[in-house]
Amino acid sequence: MLNVAVVGYGYWGPNLVRNFVEAPESEVVMVADISEANLKRVSSRYPAIQTTTSVDDIYNNNGIDAVVIATPVNTHYELALNALQSGKHVMVEKPMASSSEQAKHLIQEAQSRNLVLMVDHTFVYTGAVRKIANLVREGELGDVLYYDSTRINLGLFQHDVNVIWDLAVHDLSIIEYVLNKEPRAVSATGMSHVEGEPENVAYLTIYYDDNLIAHVNVNWLAPVKVRRTLIGGSKKMIVYDALEPIETIKIYDKGIEVETAEDIYRTLIGYRTGDMYSPKVEATEALQLEARHFIDCIKNGKTPETDGAAGLRVVKILEAASESIKNRGSVAELS
Amino acid sequence: MLNVAVVGYGYWGPNLVRNFVEAPESEVVMVADISEANLKRVSSRYPAIQTTTSVDDIYNNNGIDAVVIATPVNTHYELALNALQSGKHVMVEKPMASSSEQAKHLIQEAQSRNLVLMVDHTFVYTGAVRKIANLVREGELGDVLYYDSTRINLGLFQHDVNVIWDLAVHDLSIIEYVLNKEPRAVSATGMSHVEGEPENVAYLTIYYDDNLIAHVNVNWLAPVKVRRTLIGGSKKMIVYDALEPIETIKIYDKGIEVETAEDIYRTLIGYRTGDMYSPKVEATEALQLEARHFIDCIKNGKTPETDGAAGLRVVKILEAASESIKNRGSVAELS
Amino acid sequence: MLNVAVVGYGYWGPNLVRNFVEAPESEVVMVADISEANLKRVSSRYPAIQTTTSVDDIYNNNGIDAVVIATPVNTHYELALNALQSGKHVMVEKPMASSSEQAKHLIQEAQSRNLVLMVDHTFVYTGAVRKIANLVREGELGDVLYYDSTRINLGLFQHDVNVIWDLAVHDLSIIEYVLNKEPRAVSATGMSHVEGEPENVAYLTIYYDDNLIAHVNVNWLAPVKVRRTLIGGSKKMIVYDALEPIETIKIYDKGIEVETAEDIYRTLIGYRTGDMYSPKVEATEALQLEARHFIDCIKNGKTPETDGAAGLRVVKILEAASESIKNRGSVAELS
Amino acid sequence: MLNVAVVGYGYWGPNLVRNFVEAPESEVVMVADISEANLKRVSSRYPAIQTTTSVDDIYNNNGIDAVVIATPVNTHYELALNALQSGKHVMVEKPMASSSEQAKHLIQEAQSRNLVLMVDHTFVYTGAVRKIANLVREGELGDVLYYDSTRINLGLFQHDVNVIWDLAVHDLSIIEYVLNKEPRAVSATGMSHVEGEPENVAYLTIYYDDNLIAHVNVNWLAPVKVRRTLIGGSKKMIVYDALEPIETIKIYDKGIEVETAEDIYRTLIGYRTGDMYSPKVEATEALQLEARHFIDCIKNGKTPETDGAAGLRVVKILEAASESIKNRGSVAELS
Repeated sequence: MLNVAVVGYGYWGPNLVRNFVEAPESEVVMVADISEANLKRVSSRYPAIQTTTSVDDIYNNNGIDAVVIATPVNTHYELALNALQSGKHVMVEKPMASSSEQAKHLIQEAQSRNLVLMVDHTFVYTGAVRKIANLVREGELGDVLYYDSTRINLGLFQHDVNVIWDLAVHDLSIIEYVLNKEPRAVSATGMSHVEGEPENVAYLTIYYDDNLIAHVNVNWLAPVKVRRTLIGGSKKMIVYDALEPIETIKIYDKGIEVETAEDIYRTLIGYRTGDMYSPKVEATEALQLEARHFIDCIKNGKTPETDGAAGLRVVKILEAASESIKNRGSVAELS
Repeated sequence: MLNVAVVGYGYWGPNLVRNFVEAPESEVVMVADISEANLKRVSSRYPAIQTTTSVDDIYNNNGIDAVVIATPVNTHYELALNALQSGKHVMVEKPMASSSEQAKHLIQEAQSRNLVLMVDHTFVYTGAVRKIANLVREGELGDVLYYDSTRINLGLFQHDVNVIWDLAVHDLSIIEYVLNKEPRAVSATGMSHVEGEPENVAYLTIYYDDNLIAHVNVNWLAPVKVRRTLIGGSKKMIVYDALEPIETIKIYDKGIEVETAEDIYRTLIGYRTGDMYSPKVEATEALQLEARHFIDCIKNGKTPETDGAAGLRVVKILEAASESIKNRGSVAELS
Repeated sequence: MLNVAVVGYGYWGPNLVRNFVEAPESEVVMVADISEANLKRVSSRYPAIQTTTSVDDIYNNNGIDAVVIATPVNTHYELALNALQSGKHVMVEKPMASSSEQAKHLIQEAQSRNLVLMVDHTFVYTGAVRKIANLVREGELGDVLYYDSTRINLGLFQHDVNVIWDLAVHDLSIIEYVLNKEPRAVSATGMSHVEGEPENVAYLTIYYDDNLIAHVNVNWLAPVKVRRTLIGGSKKMIVYDALEPIETIKIYDKGIEVETAEDIYRTLIGYRTGDMYSPKVEATEALQLEARHFIDCIKNGKTPETDGAAGLRVVKILEAASESIKNRGSVAELS
Repeated sequence: MLNVAVVGYGYWGPNLVRNFVEAPESEVVMVADISEANLKRVSSRYPAIQTTTSVDDIYNNNGIDAVVIATPVNTHYELALNALQSGKHVMVEKPMASSSEQAKHLIQEAQSRNLVLMVDHTFVYTGAVRKIANLVREGELGDVLYYDSTRINLGLFQHDVNVIWDLAVHDLSIIEYVLNKEPRAVSATGMSHVEGEPENVAYLTIYYDDNLIAHVNVNWLAPVKVRRTLIGGSKKMIVYDALEPIETIKIYDKGIEVETAEDIYRTLIGYRTGDMYSPKVEATEALQLEARHFIDCIKNGKTPETDGAAGLRVVKILEAASESIKNRGSVAELS
């Protein structure tokens, strides 16, 4: 049995606690939060779990094996670092840290201490994204040509991070897992409509080799909720609508056929349009799958599918996006 | 009765011919096209209309009052110039010309000869766009904050212009009419997936004063057809779906309320969400309204709602987009 | 503070317990169920609530003011009767009883003892149905001409009641509340596709005075889930889609205009089609509103909106439907 | 080359004329209509076609091989009979006649003269319906359990036939072709909301052997347009939405699994839910396919897929529906 502590019991923390409580090989022994009100909610729901307003109670507790961090982004680095330094495995909310430098440092710290460092890229553990990743890896789509996502709604305005760090981070974690390619450069544009606040509307383009391009449209100020991703391949194309409970993924047998005629100069481009197919998607809660994977990695010395390296790649794109957005779209190269 | 000639009877020309035939105050007397097959289709459908493969037959015909040009973009300038120089009023397909210099020249030519020069920004004459423009002008939306359009499908690849010149031009004509503001800068990104061909996926951001931003997502290689525009205002927001035959426009009484609390540093942003309302939209065919407007402008010396100046503003953005796309999003200022 | 006991902790019971726990003026003191496993779920969630496998523990407990019954239909009558006879107010699941005779007896029993008898017609307490009822009562729709509902999905097959008693009962409770008219006759058709089991596909027509007709389509064996109701009025029409979280109700300004021309024999029927409007709907959980209403009725001697009489009217239609379905649609008159 | 005459150039006639003009092996030589205005439209569009207000000009013309009848229902019988008696092949609009007696007489007349008699059940010639029929015949769906169609909109009120004869007739023609089974009995309910006019809302249930049931919901007074059919099979189920231009047919791998446990009395019914698949549907215009089939039948002595017998089966159900609707749903047996 693995003893887990959770830091942060605000919006996402309750889901993490519940899933580690339900996972057969872990027990949640302590929850820390700065809010007494939040801790009361823990106690009334789970009388057996200890609560504290001091994270040191977690670091100093030798009975705790792993720490799960669900606090604001700007606290991730220090909390995760302290947890690793006190010898605990760490699972940290996305984005992993506020800068790539911080992310790199966490990776080194985990590596040198032989501890598991996992980033909570929850979407990677959904049945839909795993299905899409399989289709891409098995070559079902042919060459992937573009990834195009719209993630908009009348959402909670954040004060410390802009809409890219808040919403596009989900797409970046999916892109990272599904495309599995090195991003080369980023161009981002956006606008704030409340003085002194971060951008609430933003657009992000990521360039890859081989003419692959990804684009993410995020908006906290939209009248309708949309969670729709198109993935265009040379053979087939996918529409992934996370708000569709049943037909979440649709695979279209559509594309173009390029013919280079010999005797004319002009390329001929023909259309191909066939059947559509919507596979059944595994319905297990993503967080349960993820919690078990974290436990498995710790017990059996495995590397998480969403390890520190994956978290770092996402943070690098976020950093570059912030840089580009300041220059109204000027490209930021990724090293 | 106004005598009209149409140049170009390919994809759009037949619609123009039909509408000028149906308009009560005009008659189509001649159609020119380089394809004999196209001209045969004219004759079988309209035996009374003369056909020719030589546009000079139109220029030299003193009985012709106006010329409507529906040919590839790169021919617009020369054809329109010749028509104006032979003393004829001109209606030209969008985009008006291949460069802003050409567009300016056409405007001067029309002005100096006191001829009507109109650009066929068809969407401006749809019931939906006119309704939206009225709502914006009457302040129903409050301050317009953003315009966000997706215009994608498995579309005809063009060889001479990219997807921005082909599809985003529709949005630019709508933006021009609805927002009625001076664009300041453009950032565009995109990609071609067929060697030697223009971009088939592209994204365009336009910056305006007062934190207004417009974004257009265009794609010739999408598995589904989408024609959806969001317009966010400080009071209300619009979703305009051109593929919805009935509820084309939806007006959402949604928004945010910004409160600056006195005793704390943090801005409080609250949500407001109310009713939705879908006004009935005028169903008259846009091109019929447009044809009559062209005739009215000629007869009564009026300035078209979509005159050369409107056409020029659109071409300027297209030019800037082409420049920016080459630099992977680097901003192109508009003078 | 009102002391409530809940009988039955299967599918619906947990929602009832939770809502009476959350209601400010009631306390849940006991839960009875025949399944020990279900009772364990009660105890782990609510350690303070007593559990029992014997309903007599509830009847004999003088500290209990009201009993809420959420058991299979064929047990409603006996359980409710015993509860009333032991002096307790009763809220019972829909349908209220297995026959109109039983329902009448329960009403008499409650009346003679001056106890509140309420039927859990949950939909009546949703924001959507209350909004619709208001629109109808205020004459917004004009004369109501028809009610047409489709309520289908791949649903749990019941063994003791057919799909009309299971699914159409929801519509009947809505119709009862919204139309507020005396049904005159019923015709029902249906089919069973599993030998020895009740009908899993069924269609129900209810006749009212003044040419009002209601129709309900229910199906346990449908590939898609639909919860859509059309209400046609002489002035306006409503589409109510219970699966639409946001635009649940749409009001269409559409209809016909009948003109009786003087000099011709034929009636002229014209169309009228105008705006659509989707009002914001109150989002409070229906069951919370309902629980509070039950408490209010007990405390202040009020008659519930969904009292025994409403429950009886629904059971009468269900009875008539069962009779008609056996005769393949032959009309069953309602007395 | 087959010489065809068309009687009736109102709503549907122009489509028939166009398709027989376009068909490679037929020529339209004459059109008859009682309205001079309609005939003028013929002449302006097709100068070579003769027009007449007297159908006798067609019957007496020996150069005419076949007559296509697109007039009101109550004229079908006499027009078709006269055409057959003057030795011409006949294609007649649906429903074939006003009574089954009339329909039988037409069949006899055609048979005795060895002429082709075809009924224009247009939907049978659409790619979607042909695909569905193939799936059913190949056993892809298993046993067909139910057919459930909704065909509603704010439609043209007819004065001579009710909404079942006007709209449900489409479903009956599809059912006839797809299910290919003998209907046993009919129950229909409905209501008129305009005094003296036929039913504008109606519901039709058709009983078949082997627990197969079909239901059709038709309405001229609905605020939204719906054309949706569900076909439930023991193995798979279909949703056919005729308003969906792309994903017209969806095939769901869903169903139930009935297990009769040995040691318990209760049947266990489990759910099965798998992938969904939307086949590409042939896009050829149905009427073109149908026109060529008519010509082929005449030239090669074949029996039409929608022959007089098919037309008669549809008329029989319509007759029975009219009888049942008068008795508010009482079953009408089909001999």
